[in-house]
Amino acid sequence: MSDAARSFGVVHVDVDTGPQSREEQVAHEEPLEIQVNGASVAVLMRTPGHDIELGTGFLLTERMVRGVDEIASIRHCTLVPDPEAEENILQVRLKPGVPFDLERFRRNTFASSGCGVCGKATIENACAVAAPLSDEARIAAARLAEQPEKLRAAQEAFDLTGGLHGAGLFTLAGALVMVREDVGRHNAVDKLVGFLAANGLEPGRHTLLVSGRVSFEIVQKAAAARIPIVAGISAPSSLAVRMARELRLTLVGFLRGRTMNIYAGEERVLQAITSGAVVGIP
Amino acid sequence: MSDAARSFGVVHVDVDTGPQSREEQVAHEEPLEIQVNGASVAVLMRTPGHDIELGTGFLLTERMVRGVDEIASIRHCTLVPDPEAEENILQVRLKPGVPFDLERFRRNTFASSGCGVCGKATIENACAVAAPLSDEARIAAARLAEQPEKLRAAQEAFDLTGGLHGAGLFTLAGALVMVREDVGRHNAVDKLVGFLAANGLEPGRHTLLVSGRVSFEIVQKAAAARIPIVAGISAPSSLAVRMARELRLTLVGFLRGRTMNIYAGEERVLQAITSGAVVGIP
Repeated sequence: MSDAARSFGVVHVDVDTGPQSREEQVAHEEPLEIQVNGASVAVLMRTPGHDIELGTGFLLTERMVRGVDEIASIRHCTLVPDPEAEENILQVRLKPGVPFDLERFRRNTFASSGCGVCGKATIENACAVAAPLSDEARIAAARLAEQPEKLRAAQEAFDLTGGLHGAGLFTLAGALVMVREDVGRHNAVDKLVGFLAANGLEPGRHTLLVSGRVSFEIVQKAAAARIPIVAGISAPSSLAVRMARELRLTLVGFLRGRTMNIYAGEERVLQAITSGAVVGIP
Repeated sequence: MSDAARSFGVVHVDVDTGPQSREEQVAHEEPLEIQVNGASVAVLMRTPGHDIELGTGFLLTERMVRGVDEIASIRHCTLVPDPEAEENILQVRLKPGVPFDLERFRRNTFASSGCGVCGKATIENACAVAAPLSDEARIAAARLAEQPEKLRAAQEAFDLTGGLHGAGLFTLAGALVMVREDVGRHNAVDKLVGFLAANGLEPGRHTLLVSGRVSFEIVQKAAAARIPIVAGISAPSSLAVRMARELRLTLVGFLRGRTMNIYAGEERVLQAITSGAVVGIP
């Protein structure tokens, strides 16, 4: 298995033939903290691998350095208390005399913690402040399967550009409540959450559909908004799956045609528990 | 025209039949600065529209507030010297007594400037430190058209997940030099830039291909790395097009089959200037 993928047991649901347990490969996502001369300048959510190149490229393209010749050394920090964090801190030393204005570059480091940056700590931080999600929300697999077509129809009316991500808010009966679009998929979700909150809608009575992939950030935002069911037309990341499992949030991916994969919280999707009963995430 | 789209003149190239001038709709991308109690907490690159919802949702999902009832008011700032910035600053007032820890939330605000946050200022900031791009780089449209297939073939070898963005570095003769993948498309580009720099390759002799959309951030990173030609299989954003034009960077979108749109710097794509000669971006 490549370091770029992680294997997860999922429930694959075909609306017509029922659920099946399966193993699926999921894009590996982990935080990487970049430290320059001992100070944290950024935490990127990235796929592990080629981290030295990533750190070098990041410093160059964010114009923190003017050339590779300004970098004295760049390596993983090995002094971390948590083995999971071992590959997730990159320490950069600049050559003596190279100017570096930390304040200009410091990024919001939502995953930074004393015990090291890792998926576990990132999830713990996010979960520590999360309110519980509705245990009662249920949606039929057949209703989920109809959502992409509804989102697409609504998006077609707006998106002339081929360049906008769409997010849709649906009722548990599968009705489309609102669509928002944005060049940033997280912005489309934030717009929907703002709509939900401003209109006093009950998050536990709704599901979220995104037109593309489901990253950690999308699950984190849905959980913060207390939406218990999140679906994507494309793939989730490994950290999205881990966080959804930790929070008992229902995460559906590859929602296409009459089929879908359920990566977490399968008990909220009706067919997965009613037809077969014994089928669950392995 | 919706506020979510902007119209641009482009050169549409069919490798078999030649170039044509056209108008294309492009996803509108602009910075939005969010200020809480007078302090800047974030600059998002977003599609204008539903900004109040976006600001409300952002504050909720980033857990800057615990509920909409903590927000006293949220509105666009109208006191900006530059009319282009008028819609791009959102001022939030929290109710008296609501705790707010600015330091915990402050984000890197690369587009923030005294004269207001707008596409123009964002581009000016990025251009101010950009080195000139190679005027001599040329690539044949037919070579560009072959790139997506080469990237896809290389990605198939790695991507079992359906969840990784790919970025490819090519020579001007169209040969694939290196592929990198990541859950974040900007990370895949940074990995390639790190590879380029670490191996001392000449950026002006290379082109960049991304497997999806081309946002402002991708053009900014390519320009910082001095790669003069950027192509995407999918759509660019309006700010990506504007920045590419300002920098005289060649920007190609919808590179599919035997066709493509050239949004900026068409003189570097051979067929667009040699066959027809008079065809340029209208």
